[in-house]
Amino acid sequence: MTTLEFWYEFASTYSYPAAWRIERLATAAGVKVAWRPLLLGPLFHKQQGLNDSPFNVVEVKGRYMWRDLERVCQAEMLPFRRPSQFPRRTLLAARLALVGAKRGWIAPFSRGVYAANFGQDRDIGDPAVLAKIVKEVGGDPVADFHDADSDAIKAELRANVAEAEAKGVFGAPSFYIPNAASPGGELFWGNDRLEQAVAWAAGAR
Amino acid sequence: MTTLEFWYEFASTYSYPAAWRIERLATAAGVKVAWRPLLLGPLFHKQQGLNDSPFNVVEVKGRYMWRDLERVCQAEMLPFRRPSQFPRRTLLAARLALVGAKRGWIAPFSRGVYAANFGQDRDIGDPAVLAKIVKEVGGDPVADFHDADSDAIKAELRANVAEAEAKGVFGAPSFYIPNAASPGGELFWGNDRLEQAVAWAAGAR
Repeated sequence: MTTLEFWYEFASTYSYPAAWRIERLATAAGVKVAWRPLLLGPLFHKQQGLNDSPFNVVEVKGRYMWRDLERVCQAEMLPFRRPSQFPRRTLLAARLALVGAKRGWIAPFSRGVYAANFGQDRDIGDPAVLAKIVKEVGGDPVADFHDADSDAIKAELRANVAEAEAKGVFGAPSFYIPNAASPGGELFWGNDRLEQAVAWAAGAR
Repeated sequence: MTTLEFWYEFASTYSYPAAWRIERLATAAGVKVAWRPLLLGPLFHKQQGLNDSPFNVVEVKGRYMWRDLERVCQAEMLPFRRPSQFPRRTLLAARLALVGAKRGWIAPFSRGVYAANFGQDRDIGDPAVLAKIVKEVGGDPVADFHDADSDAIKAELRANVAEAEAKGVFGAPSFYIPNAASPGGELFWGNDRLEQAVAWAAGAR
């Protein structure tokens, strides 16, 4: 079964619909999803010299994006409320997601974080908000927060960012299909490329 | 019959598949297309401080875009050859397109310019290349080049850029549906939003 790597950052707006759509599409195509959280801040800074979201830096693009995201969420019947703070701190959420990967709840946890940020305008930088989501997906906030703070998880998140960069990632959501026959794989960027990425992973090019 | 405004720049890579797809999709939906050429250079500079294509400024995005465009063209069965020069000068082509709007050949001329630039790697800044396309679509290069150089056409192109900016355009292809009920219309950006834009124009939201 081919694996589709799903690279996402919790502050990424279009990763919200992607996170809610990917399992359905992948399952239908017989493709396995590897949830790969990353931080975009370091990549934006290194590749584009940015210290803020491109949607804040270029106002006209931001204005468009919020309207477009509203339309996309409507079409997918996903709740949408424009976050009163953007982008939000995502370091703890990303580390918790990596803990969730080891405990089997990374997918529902990640969907929950996106829904909180973009559907309910809740502060996903707030540990209390994240603890509630951890509980909802069957985790144990005390133990999981402890592990999220470990050197191993911190190193894993840094390694994820480096791996994403090496694979050509510059934004989220990104989808990557490793190619057994060559060192390079196939990269797709954007929620609107999810269908093509899944089809590619399924071998239906 | 609703009109869908198609805002495009001849150097814009994703406008190539959009230009070749739009009439088929619009006709099927009972939507009329208004071909609105513009120059993106002034907008990129004003809105983002750029003096070059964003795909040249951010190398990793450019590398991804060329591969993605190749895939998009393959899926649409459009010839693709990466231009040896990017972006090319598009001022004369844009002015000729405006002449073509008055003479009924703006659509085939625009498709021809895109095919030359992105399908055949021909220099669309070269008047000889453009004269050949004008002839192919039934124009008269001598008279049409003369008109393209008129103050009226120059002013019209500048007005197009200003109108696009006022409508929130920041890239191409963009699709705009005027809203009779309010001053603001609906803007869609990107070849991958063409289907939604056409559906919106047809009233099937």
